[in-house]
Amino acid sequence: MRLASFYIGEHIGFGAVTDDGVIGLTGRLPGRQQTLREVLEANALGEARAAIEGVEPDYPVDKIRFALPIPDPEKIYCVGQNYRAHIDEMGYEVPEYPSIFSRYPRTFVPHGGQMEMPTGSTDFDYEGEMTVVIGRPARNVSEAEALDYVAGYTIANDGSVRDWQKRGPQVAPGKNWERSGMLGPWITTADEAGNPANMTLTTRINGEVRQQGSTADLVFSAAHLVSYISSFITLAPGDMITTGSPSGVAVGFDPPKWLVPGDKVEIEINTLGTLAAEVATF
Amino acid sequence: MRLASFYIGEHIGFGAVTDDGVIGLTGRLPGRQQTLREVLEANALGEARAAIEGVEPDYPVDKIRFALPIPDPEKIYCVGQNYRAHIDEMGYEVPEYPSIFSRYPRTFVPHGGQMEMPTGSTDFDYEGEMTVVIGRPARNVSEAEALDYVAGYTIANDGSVRDWQKRGPQVAPGKNWERSGMLGPWITTADEAGNPANMTLTTRINGEVRQQGSTADLVFSAAHLVSYISSFITLAPGDMITTGSPSGVAVGFDPPKWLVPGDKVEIEINTLGTLAAEVATF
Repeated sequence: MRLASFYIGEHIGFGAVTDDGVIGLTGRLPGRQQTLREVLEANALGEARAAIEGVEPDYPVDKIRFALPIPDPEKIYCVGQNYRAHIDEMGYEVPEYPSIFSRYPRTFVPHGGQMEMPTGSTDFDYEGEMTVVIGRPARNVSEAEALDYVAGYTIANDGSVRDWQKRGPQVAPGKNWERSGMLGPWITTADEAGNPANMTLTTRINGEVRQQGSTADLVFSAAHLVSYISSFITLAPGDMITTGSPSGVAVGFDPPKWLVPGDKVEIEINTLGTLAAEVATF
Repeated sequence: MRLASFYIGEHIGFGAVTDDGVIGLTGRLPGRQQTLREVLEANALGEARAAIEGVEPDYPVDKIRFALPIPDPEKIYCVGQNYRAHIDEMGYEVPEYPSIFSRYPRTFVPHGGQMEMPTGSTDFDYEGEMTVVIGRPARNVSEAEALDYVAGYTIANDGSVRDWQKRGPQVAPGKNWERSGMLGPWITTADEAGNPANMTLTTRINGEVRQQGSTADLVFSAAHLVSYISSFITLAPGDMITTGSPSGVAVGFDPPKWLVPGDKVEIEINTLGTLAAEVATF
């Protein structure tokens, strides 16, 4: 099942994306949940599955305006330096522990959205990433049981303003630029997403392949990251973990292939779909 | 005016803390706001002031159970390495730009709460900090106008698990421990808080003074931080910026004076009040 959040007028609702169209589910489940986060909090994926069984779609996919898959998550953790080839291109060392920082929803645009070209910097970069979506509260869970706490997976662009990222040891100023990243288009539930340690990620800029990687090459796997983060904080339903980016980012080229207004960024993960957005000037 | 959030049964409401007691304001303002964040979003501090004029308190202060002043802020940014004496004790260099990272509400306890002694680490430290609360959306605001966007000020303990903080260049694992910090007790509005560049902060552990500093010694002032952060993201009503800690943290002593279960942490800022909580084992 693929679950998306989308605009219904000014309101954000949610539904299931099928091959034939979108089935609206806002307020239609037995628990009357109004948001996808509420569905996860109520552990109601089974009810969502039952609700779409044999039901005709309400809208064609190309008629909906996507919102962030979880518009209001409690937490978004990002992992840096998690593919060996990317560690090399950035000139880093393979870390002993996962490198973890935060982003807020305002730093992402949804599928089909417009990223904001930073003013005062030209060093605008992309990072395609497989992203874990938490389904059940997780604290001190082992790596072996970690995936039981995962509802599904989505796709992120951990968009980065490289000169601001390097203004100090903490990366927040370069990783928290307004509308500099992407998230979506939907959450593919774990039962349909396949093995999170065997997904293929491809990033294209204006159709040109820039990044190609497999989550098999992650230094710290999705299961390890869920377990590790849960050792210091409770991961809550709807929380997300972006798992790091393979090599091929703009700054890795000589000269760097920075993003410019008008560029179209597409990130495809074989079992999850394709997330796309453009760079624009605001 | 001092505005606090507190529990009314399982629900969190808000009100004004006066010398004679607490005046409950949940749903009582003309806009019927249910949370302090909604009051700031509606720019309704004037209405709150009018609502408490000549009104008798509803509860004694010692009868309320405090919640975080803004239980559900969009963003909390923390600033590291912002007092020269603390930079020296930590062995850092004076940074060229503010060092910025994030915390989530779940990493803080309110006034009167119990912090969680980390399991798997003994290196539990305190950092008393003056904290800015945003009142109006701020993007690309100059340092000169920055304080016009501030609703008021509160107090934070940017509680830190030092060995986890040093597990990599990004501090999140040591700064995002569940219930490791403190926030509150209330928001003192800007008109009553005095000059944010001239506040005196004192941290006591079990009554022993450990930190004493003046915000006059901040490397980057509150106004500078609001302006700087607003250059990359919109600061929203209810967002908070903790402005860094003076010297005297546990790790600065030889041997370090780590927090242990039962310790009482008190942080006083002369114009804002005193924030207190205990360390407990969960």
